[in-house]
Amino acid sequence: MQLDNASLEQLREWESQLATQYQAILAQKLNLDLTRGKPSAEQLSLSDALDGILAGNYTAADGTDTRNYGGLDGLPEAKQLGANIMDVDAGNVLVGGNSSLTLMFQVMLAAYQFGLKDAASAWKHEGEVKFICPVPGYDRHYTVCEQLGIKMITVPMTSTGPDMDAVEALVKSDTSIKGMWCVPKYSNPTGVVYSDETVERIAKLGLLASANFRVFWDNAYSVHDLIDNAPKLANILEATRRHGTEDSVVQFASTSKITHAGSGVAFVAASAANLAGIKKFLNTCTIGPDKVNQIRHTRFLPSKEALTAHMTKHAALLNPRFEAVLSALSKAFDGTDLGAWEKPVGGYFVSFDTRRGCAKETVRLAAEAGVKLTPAGATYPYGKDPEDRNIRIAPSVPTVPEVIGAMEVFVTCVKLASVRNAITQQA
Amino acid sequence: MQLDNASLEQLREWESQLATQYQAILAQKLNLDLTRGKPSAEQLSLSDALDGILAGNYTAADGTDTRNYGGLDGLPEAKQLGANIMDVDAGNVLVGGNSSLTLMFQVMLAAYQFGLKDAASAWKHEGEVKFICPVPGYDRHYTVCEQLGIKMITVPMTSTGPDMDAVEALVKSDTSIKGMWCVPKYSNPTGVVYSDETVERIAKLGLLASANFRVFWDNAYSVHDLIDNAPKLANILEATRRHGTEDSVVQFASTSKITHAGSGVAFVAASAANLAGIKKFLNTCTIGPDKVNQIRHTRFLPSKEALTAHMTKHAALLNPRFEAVLSALSKAFDGTDLGAWEKPVGGYFVSFDTRRGCAKETVRLAAEAGVKLTPAGATYPYGKDPEDRNIRIAPSVPTVPEVIGAMEVFVTCVKLASVRNAITQQA
Repeated sequence: MQLDNASLEQLREWESQLATQYQAILAQKLNLDLTRGKPSAEQLSLSDALDGILAGNYTAADGTDTRNYGGLDGLPEAKQLGANIMDVDAGNVLVGGNSSLTLMFQVMLAAYQFGLKDAASAWKHEGEVKFICPVPGYDRHYTVCEQLGIKMITVPMTSTGPDMDAVEALVKSDTSIKGMWCVPKYSNPTGVVYSDETVERIAKLGLLASANFRVFWDNAYSVHDLIDNAPKLANILEATRRHGTEDSVVQFASTSKITHAGSGVAFVAASAANLAGIKKFLNTCTIGPDKVNQIRHTRFLPSKEALTAHMTKHAALLNPRFEAVLSALSKAFDGTDLGAWEKPVGGYFVSFDTRRGCAKETVRLAAEAGVKLTPAGATYPYGKDPEDRNIRIAPSVPTVPEVIGAMEVFVTCVKLASVRNAITQQA
Repeated sequence: MQLDNASLEQLREWESQLATQYQAILAQKLNLDLTRGKPSAEQLSLSDALDGILAGNYTAADGTDTRNYGGLDGLPEAKQLGANIMDVDAGNVLVGGNSSLTLMFQVMLAAYQFGLKDAASAWKHEGEVKFICPVPGYDRHYTVCEQLGIKMITVPMTSTGPDMDAVEALVKSDTSIKGMWCVPKYSNPTGVVYSDETVERIAKLGLLASANFRVFWDNAYSVHDLIDNAPKLANILEATRRHGTEDSVVQFASTSKITHAGSGVAFVAASAANLAGIKKFLNTCTIGPDKVNQIRHTRFLPSKEALTAHMTKHAALLNPRFEAVLSALSKAFDGTDLGAWEKPVGGYFVSFDTRRGCAKETVRLAAEAGVKLTPAGATYPYGKDPEDRNIRIAPSVPTVPEVIGAMEVFVTCVKLASVRNAITQQA
């Protein structure tokens, strides 16, 4: 199916066929859900040994009684777990509570309101503050900026990461730009891994940017590979050390999609100066994180090898679901001009770009047919996809047959919306 | 010993005797610590059944899979646990993470920066913002205000709670006063329980105060009784309902001194309007709290009766320590003019007021003799006790013989500092 050169007559014929198919789907009264980027119950069960794993031994390796107060930056062995996940030194890690989003909010708040370096370094003193957001991206990142009144400037995501020409041009020309959101590996939602060149150029942004510039490096899917020889993300901390820009990047990760999603352990990795600023802020709003949960996690994932072995089990559950999505897309749209998508080998999402102006209608048609999709636009700041093209597909929760069924609906809805849109264009 | 009418000769004789006693103590090279308001290892062990309590059943009463994301305001049964602790309806409770201090910070931040009601209600729009702090009080409360740039105005604590004449006068005369810190039961550090009249008058502050006034009611010790027929705190939520001031109070509590101090569950209790504002803010900085830890706690403390029975075990461990402190103070200072103190029947502290200008010197003398005390001044905003009188004693961690030993040092140091101070006054 190629819409660009199709005659109006041809389009009307397709529309009629697709409308019939769609009616048949409606009759099935489906109830399927591709919205939620969360682990399935089967995946969660992989970590059920967490409860009870302490067997009465609540003492950390350094003798800390994990049950009591204190330890603002986390247990040494929990820092090592974070280091294993983020591929950094344990000395660069701070361990938080159950939510890396909370840590991101806290670091953004500290940078904006109180200053990570000192009070004078707070972004709020500089009038309007802007953040670069590669699009499509993660809605919860946008919410943090919106809450703090930070204006979001979009740049396009490519198959190698953010469009770095655009990023560098912005950073050089506008001193009110104070940072950028990144999901560098299996980017949410496109699933691409930033190339070595992209990482290198991001590490050098600190040389171009105005003072107190901070890249928020949300490495949420660092060990979430679906294949054995997964692409390796270049080490941003090492790159910034080489360029003397170590303070310009703050990294985040968590065990949320490794163990139990809601009750994991979150991490920050950063330079000594950034860690000092973060700790100073955290000291005003907590006595310390849940160290018992930290030690549960370190007993459950005591080494890099244990972590890798555990993630392989996740991959075995996720793989058929991703295959179901990708083969449905290939079968329906290879060689057509109806859409474009990446083929992620990790993470939680497949991102599909429809023809211009077709995403909302596709989501609407799918919803009417009983297949819930993330609202079109959710992957853009302020919920506004200017070309109305991007749709995020999250296949982890439904069963494989459910994913297959949902994708049959999805491709039909994409086609129907596209053909109808093309008819409107010609009419 | 009465210093006020003692002759200089008498004072010098006492000084000489006390200095000899103090030298004997120095020779013992003690190493004791009365600083930390945290549970002892024995107390923590009372809750060691928490790990493993789920026995593979991670499902909440309403069918929620606690292992996954979501549930911003907590599980229904966890709300009931909070309701049991705070003596409110479960419908007024929101359940957070492991730290009530974090919740207090978040609510204060939301009220100051973003508005609990709407953006226009944010305190920051009103220029200078002030908070009433009854003194002595809890240093971490002060830190929250200081971080946000909220000016602290002190009022004296009495044996029935804050001096309400002073509080009402401030609230009526100064519209920049936006709230007050309260630890209403076993107040930190004096250990008093607010009287029914005090609670009633606090509930009516909302009728006198400027818009968006909020009392932060930190009910940290609500079930932390040392005796069977413990004083009952009047119900502030019911009182505010009677007066139509329900939005003027936000309550906080946690299981931190009930189960494991660092890995418990924290709660907010508030009006529907306040809860809506708090949830709106929390939604920008977390996907949700640790529900697995919530369900662990509800299985461990499934009813009010279970909670009371559990707290009786804590009381059995804490009682001899408090008795050691109070009997040492009675023996040394009853009938003297060397100090004043309350006799708490719950909580974690005994607060001792020396004669004017003697607290710092007492703490210094004790430290030299190997007995660590909380720095004098820590119980006042900005660390400044204007009369240099208050010292917080925290006896929960040391053993009973250690508390007895530390108190022997303490009373000697109080006497020595007092007598030397009196000599200076006369000289």
